Amino acid sequence: MKAAVIYGAKDVRIEDIQEPAIKPGYVKVKVAWAGICGSDPHAYHHGMGISMTPHPVSKRQVPLTLGHEFAGTIVEAGEGVADLAPGDRVAIEPLIYADNDYYAKLGKYNLSNTFGFLGLNDDGGFAEYAVVRATQAHKLPDAVSLEEGALVEPTAVTLQAVKSSDLKAGQSVIVFGAGPIGLLTIICAKAAGASDVVAVDISPERLEKAREAGASLTINSAEAKVEDQVFAQFPNGVDVAYEAAGVQATFSSALNVLKKGGQLMVIAAYGQPVTLDVNQLLIGELKVTASLAYRHVFPEVIAMIASGRLNVEPVITKKIELPQLVEDGLELLLRDKSQAKILVEL
Amino acid sequence: MKAAVIYGAKDVRIEDIQEPAIKPGYVKVKVAWAGICGSDPHAYHHGMGISMTPHPVSKRQVPLTLGHEFAGTIVEAGEGVADLAPGDRVAIEPLIYADNDYYAKLGKYNLSNTFGFLGLNDDGGFAEYAVVRATQAHKLPDAVSLEEGALVEPTAVTLQAVKSSDLKAGQSVIVFGAGPIGLLTIICAKAAGASDVVAVDISPERLEKAREAGASLTINSAEAKVEDQVFAQFPNGVDVAYEAAGVQATFSSALNVLKKGGQLMVIAAYGQPVTLDVNQLLIGELKVTASLAYRHVFPEVIAMIASGRLNVEPVITKKIELPQLVEDGLELLLRDKSQAKILVEL
Repeated sequence: MKAAVIYGAKDVRIEDIQEPAIKPGYVKVKVAWAGICGSDPHAYHHGMGISMTPHPVSKRQVPLTLGHEFAGTIVEAGEGVADLAPGDRVAIEPLIYADNDYYAKLGKYNLSNTFGFLGLNDDGGFAEYAVVRATQAHKLPDAVSLEEGALVEPTAVTLQAVKSSDLKAGQSVIVFGAGPIGLLTIICAKAAGASDVVAVDISPERLEKAREAGASLTINSAEAKVEDQVFAQFPNGVDVAYEAAGVQATFSSALNVLKKGGQLMVIAAYGQPVTLDVNQLLIGELKVTASLAYRHVFPEVIAMIASGRLNVEPVITKKIELPQLVEDGLELLLRDKSQAKILVEL
Repeated sequence: MKAAVIYGAKDVRIEDIQEPAIKPGYVKVKVAWAGICGSDPHAYHHGMGISMTPHPVSKRQVPLTLGHEFAGTIVEAGEGVADLAPGDRVAIEPLIYADNDYYAKLGKYNLSNTFGFLGLNDDGGFAEYAVVRATQAHKLPDAVSLEEGALVEPTAVTLQAVKSSDLKAGQSVIVFGAGPIGLLTIICAKAAGASDVVAVDISPERLEKAREAGASLTINSAEAKVEDQVFAQFPNGVDVAYEAAGVQATFSSALNVLKKGGQLMVIAAYGQPVTLDVNQLLIGELKVTASLAYRHVFPEVIAMIASGRLNVEPVITKKIELPQLVEDGLELLLRDKSQAKILVEL
């Protein structure tokens, strides 16, 4: 079968590999759509996150099939699999972890000490077929398309961040970074009852997308000072800041525009440590928190997409086919900052 | 009357000043005991926190009577004061703020943009008499002594920090800094159901006090690596870290010894900004939060002392009289790190 296989930094090859074989407790999925995650270009360009030595859970290392945001149709169910059958359309939850891990046993499997991802630490979804644990396959109702199914994973990241933040209906939020994660955060915050959403980015195209997603105020931080713009409209600041940009400037601005008692929720990885004035936290009783991936939230995301409460389609900016993955996907995302989510059709 | 009056840095004078006059809505208190706060030596040595120009709420500036942790007996109640009468023993809540402030109206008066303290921004408690708003005077039941009454204010700081943290019964905590605030945090965390309390300091005498207060493990961070000691006993780390030391080393150690999903609660002011690895927060879903002073918690502190649930007396290390305040109080606290709470008898 055709698959996008990563061998290391700058080395992703579209090649013919052997179809994976079904196993007890697993399902074989004919992949329909797979999204390119913000981390995929980092894996491609710098080898970030991919297993160059055997991963403790999967025991696998490169070459590995890339891609961890995917949906498709079950073609075969392994021995012992109940509730899933050929023909079922499913979105895949790609986290892998050891079941006997301390945090997994607490139900916090995203905090497992050995957690990893299909598509980085085991074979993923940029392939015609994938064989995954039945517990990783979440059934899609008719109202959810397979394209939307490929968006469940990034939406799970943002719904988790919104749900674990202090946001309550009627409050105001700001989102730094209007890439796919920022846009989906806007959509989830609106669904959670945010009264006003401010979006910050340096790309006019992304800010336009942010308006489509529901932002009522957009700020181009390359052209205007974030603090000035926010305080002009919200004299006491905003309640929750979601930080999906990952640099000192946005980290500091996020703290500066919070109401006292407000919360900065980090969703992005940072390239460098930041400087933090702890007294600013103390005087304002500000909180700096973070949310990592997701746990136990795929069913809710799917139900909210099905009911129309979450309209995730505005984040799609391009659809390509597998042979175009490197040139029109992984390479394009680095140079074209107007792109948000690129979906790959398998 | 005799009072300790601050004129500026290094200039605290014990002198005779005019007795304050009663006003409508105020009560006049014969002060019995007043504690020296950790901030008082900073006010004395560096002028930190004291009003050198008129404070927006009190309209007062130096010279001001120092002291904001005090209790005494009402000798006169102003016009319109209900529920308080001469003879009532009271602990004073020394926060001042503008009633029409945005945060005050939300009930978060400790976050008021113009908040200040009696004893720093208005006349305080190192005096024979103080005249305070009736709303600032909390009645003490018979079971609470006037010495304990002088400890209500710092205990309110720590009960607030413990209550606003994520601590649940059965969890483990670590407290950095075993001065008065650290010791009272240990006492409050135990009262809130903490299973194990680890205390960290560099003074053997303070660590001995920490054991008296309820710590089950003490670490002298001048002699041993905090991380090694904690992980030897708690392989997965601890649930909540209270940071009452205020330096990079303790801030970093606090984050390092937390369980994933754990919380660092800052109670101390910091002399310098810190460096923060945001990815450490992300991978561990760690929270950095802070608690400032107190709101709406004096009645609970008093009730918990009265019922014996909080035994605060172990934090007292010395009792002096007003003429000794500078030499045996403000000066002593800077050079003798075995001291915790010094009470002044008026």
